[in-house]
Amino acid sequence: MWLRTSYDLTFDITVPTPFILMLRPRSGAQQWIAREEYALVPSVPAFEFTDSYGNLCQRLVAPPGTFEVHTAADVLTADYIDQAPGAPFVEIQNLPDAVLSYLLPSRYCESELFGQMATEITSDQQPGYDQVVAIEAWLHRSIRYEPGTSDMPVSAVEVNARQSGVCRDLSHLGIALCRSLSIPARMVVGYLYGLEPMDMHAWFEAYVADRWYTFDATQAVHTGGYVAVGYGRDAADVAVYNQFGPPVYPSAQSVHVQLIEEKGT
Amino acid sequence: MWLRTSYDLTFDITVPTPFILMLRPRSGAQQWIAREEYALVPSVPAFEFTDSYGNLCQRLVAPPGTFEVHTAADVLTADYIDQAPGAPFVEIQNLPDAVLSYLLPSRYCESELFGQMATEITSDQQPGYDQVVAIEAWLHRSIRYEPGTSDMPVSAVEVNARQSGVCRDLSHLGIALCRSLSIPARMVVGYLYGLEPMDMHAWFEAYVADRWYTFDATQAVHTGGYVAVGYGRDAADVAVYNQFGPPVYPSAQSVHVQLIEEKGT
Amino acid sequence: MWLRTSYDLTFDITVPTPFILMLRPRSGAQQWIAREEYALVPSVPAFEFTDSYGNLCQRLVAPPGTFEVHTAADVLTADYIDQAPGAPFVEIQNLPDAVLSYLLPSRYCESELFGQMATEITSDQQPGYDQVVAIEAWLHRSIRYEPGTSDMPVSAVEVNARQSGVCRDLSHLGIALCRSLSIPARMVVGYLYGLEPMDMHAWFEAYVADRWYTFDATQAVHTGGYVAVGYGRDAADVAVYNQFGPPVYPSAQSVHVQLIEEKGT
Amino acid sequence: MWLRTSYDLTFDITVPTPFILMLRPRSGAQQWIAREEYALVPSVPAFEFTDSYGNLCQRLVAPPGTFEVHTAADVLTADYIDQAPGAPFVEIQNLPDAVLSYLLPSRYCESELFGQMATEITSDQQPGYDQVVAIEAWLHRSIRYEPGTSDMPVSAVEVNARQSGVCRDLSHLGIALCRSLSIPARMVVGYLYGLEPMDMHAWFEAYVADRWYTFDATQAVHTGGYVAVGYGRDAADVAVYNQFGPPVYPSAQSVHVQLIEEKGT
Repeated sequence: MWLRTSYDLTFDITVPTPFILMLRPRSGAQQWIAREEYALVPSVPAFEFTDSYGNLCQRLVAPPGTFEVHTAADVLTADYIDQAPGAPFVEIQNLPDAVLSYLLPSRYCESELFGQMATEITSDQQPGYDQVVAIEAWLHRSIRYEPGTSDMPVSAVEVNARQSGVCRDLSHLGIALCRSLSIPARMVVGYLYGLEPMDMHAWFEAYVADRWYTFDATQAVHTGGYVAVGYGRDAADVAVYNQFGPPVYPSAQSVHVQLIEEKGT
Repeated sequence: MWLRTSYDLTFDITVPTPFILMLRPRSGAQQWIAREEYALVPSVPAFEFTDSYGNLCQRLVAPPGTFEVHTAADVLTADYIDQAPGAPFVEIQNLPDAVLSYLLPSRYCESELFGQMATEITSDQQPGYDQVVAIEAWLHRSIRYEPGTSDMPVSAVEVNARQSGVCRDLSHLGIALCRSLSIPARMVVGYLYGLEPMDMHAWFEAYVADRWYTFDATQAVHTGGYVAVGYGRDAADVAVYNQFGPPVYPSAQSVHVQLIEEKGT
Repeated sequence: MWLRTSYDLTFDITVPTPFILMLRPRSGAQQWIAREEYALVPSVPAFEFTDSYGNLCQRLVAPPGTFEVHTAADVLTADYIDQAPGAPFVEIQNLPDAVLSYLLPSRYCESELFGQMATEITSDQQPGYDQVVAIEAWLHRSIRYEPGTSDMPVSAVEVNARQSGVCRDLSHLGIALCRSLSIPARMVVGYLYGLEPMDMHAWFEAYVADRWYTFDATQAVHTGGYVAVGYGRDAADVAVYNQFGPPVYPSAQSVHVQLIEEKGT
Repeated sequence: MWLRTSYDLTFDITVPTPFILMLRPRSGAQQWIAREEYALVPSVPAFEFTDSYGNLCQRLVAPPGTFEVHTAADVLTADYIDQAPGAPFVEIQNLPDAVLSYLLPSRYCESELFGQMATEITSDQQPGYDQVVAIEAWLHRSIRYEPGTSDMPVSAVEVNARQSGVCRDLSHLGIALCRSLSIPARMVVGYLYGLEPMDMHAWFEAYVADRWYTFDATQAVHTGGYVAVGYGRDAADVAVYNQFGPPVYPSAQSVHVQLIEEKGT
């Protein structure tokens, strides 16, 4: 399906503030970026680099005053995410080197603490894809999904204690559970067509049968309509913006995802 | 200045043909990509990756029939390229690791053969930026610039023998001369506003005083208006498309660069 | 000074167990590896790769039975670590891209929670090196250093609550405090000559004045004698071994560091 | 088999001379480095980095006077190189991203010029491993192997014209022929047990059936005993030393490879 996404952010800046933005989606296995817009108002010098996860990041210093960031994209993305019931677990020794770091605990995914729990949740499953489906189903059933944005990310341990969370929180717990079974898992931030209420979204991917598969515990029915913007070990790696110095919060932000006929050339 | 660039390619494909395209410019030190379009007709699955030079590359298999690639961008780029007379040579031991490979000979830049010649061309100069200016001036004076596209890249040795060449050829010789003086040099392909006749362009960058500077031996007067699309050691690394299997040539291609008021949001 | 280090590990393996070892020190800014030994008994196939932090890692599957790992090195390392009182803070916008990830919170360094505390600890200091010295001194004064090895790493928040910890724990708190001031900080594991009791050691580095400096809150007097084996954001990245499947613990391990006349060729 | 390798180099330096050495073998798919020695006399500061091909490189400035480099290793390497008759060609679209650059022409491998010739040499073969065997056999039959060291590398075109060459030259032609068939190929420098006369050696690898295989056109009979030190696109990437400034040549060098009982712990 063809989607038009937009994300607009406004900040009221008081002192020159360094930012690192992660707002430029890349074409990838299941999405093609056919049109993209990215405006900084005022237009300040910005430098782009690729981080160690392959994300395009933009560095800049926002000047005092109103600072706006406007991004938009026309994206061809899959109508249905790929599914692979029965797809096997990949033995550690057969994983690609680049995937190994997604087995380790990270800031918000204390995977070393979830081995027992993950084993119980997946007790009836064959190792691999089906285990992750069981984790996703358990999350959907057990952790109340609260749409909206929390102020700060919380970790898998806290999410499990609270029994509720935003999309990011459910992903953290899902990732921690996967990794505790030696299944590489990573976080994705981006857009989801039809999300209610509309906002930036987060989900997770797990590596089985030699590729990454998409999982999202917030949705009862899985279709497609996902547009990935950033990948990382958890929310610490994939903030759509990191800001340094005295804290600054958006005075306004809006997210839109609409179905379009075809890319807007 | 704000520029709108476009590059359109048409191929008549007879057998399924793997392509690697390098047609997505990135924001960087001196340019900001405010809008970008990239269409494949027909729309085939494409996978994007970052090569070891930091270029965004797209992999796909073009199906038999007419295959079109359309790209366009709105770019804010410098009105004048940075210049730095007197900027010093960087001692090898002080170069960043990532820059060292740009000292070595490469496919079209046989730098190990140009030491004597480079020394003569730059005999009156202080080591560093001024040497590269002397090389650029010598190229402009000595190698006849023939706009247009040659069929195949030729190497620095051949360009020097022919005493003429396209933009790519002059760059190869410039790069070889720089490297023979232990100045890191790399090739850039992209767009130049006002190029006559309009076409994809190539120039080179040299690393002095801890950063890359732009040089272009094809132009008598240096202003700005450069939009970089790809970086590499020479033309072997920065083909805007690489194609595998039986040779396929574009049946049509066009390049446009126009001045715009502001990005087209 | 010339040091001879050795680290020997024995495991009793019951089922084939995948390991990732990080036990090969690299020559670097302040150390030269003149001789190195690395034996696996029994000798199993092992594959080496470089992780995203530049560490050399070895992958293998340990077979059932006794599995031994023996490593040793002769290293020339600095008699005194570099110090730089007054060395300035590097503005975020001037940091190299590769250093930026060391500003973010990580598994055991919840830096986003320590801003207030770090500001108080460093209130009298100029931004940069002197802030890190103040953090190091505060750690040495306030957190009781308990030599030896804890079973599992604990995070900066927990270390701060307990007011005591092993070398790794003090490093985590030091790193979290630095990052909360926007000073990049990373963890180092390795050897320290004269450590009492001898064991693998951990310390941290902070990035000021365009380079990394060594800090170690466990030692009252700083001389040199450090041999780095691995670098990372925190202990999650620099385990000397990661093991997958049912937990396996060393049945024996020993660490030795002795002064030698000269490398043993 | 267990091998002990050594490589000793002496230079008479007149002015401070920057060097980049590539003399530290890494453990890999078919070799394990059990002991390694690396001495610089006099002992000067050296910095180690990993280049974009994964090689460990050492940077230093040699001071005026006699400068010696001594390296040695005990290595467990395969008795027989892996062979895979019939192993299939990998379609371009299925190659890993990291392998793609080994399809492109490089300094000494003008692969774009050898399509016709490679097709003729391999006309009776199935695409893949068997094509490379045919290329290797053709090289062995058609290009006279001249042991020893030439002063400068020559390119595939020149080797083909001369009909003779050193190990490096045969590799360049083999690589160019493979790439012209869209088979990724790369150069390896290292040691070969039993080489007559003993010297540093060079061979090539081709990527078929999802992994790299070893080929060596200089040897009539293929056993094992290979120890790889560096990998690259061709000799320009894998010089065991690169030296900058006025040319300096070794006043002495020696290479030894002997069979040992077991690593010398």
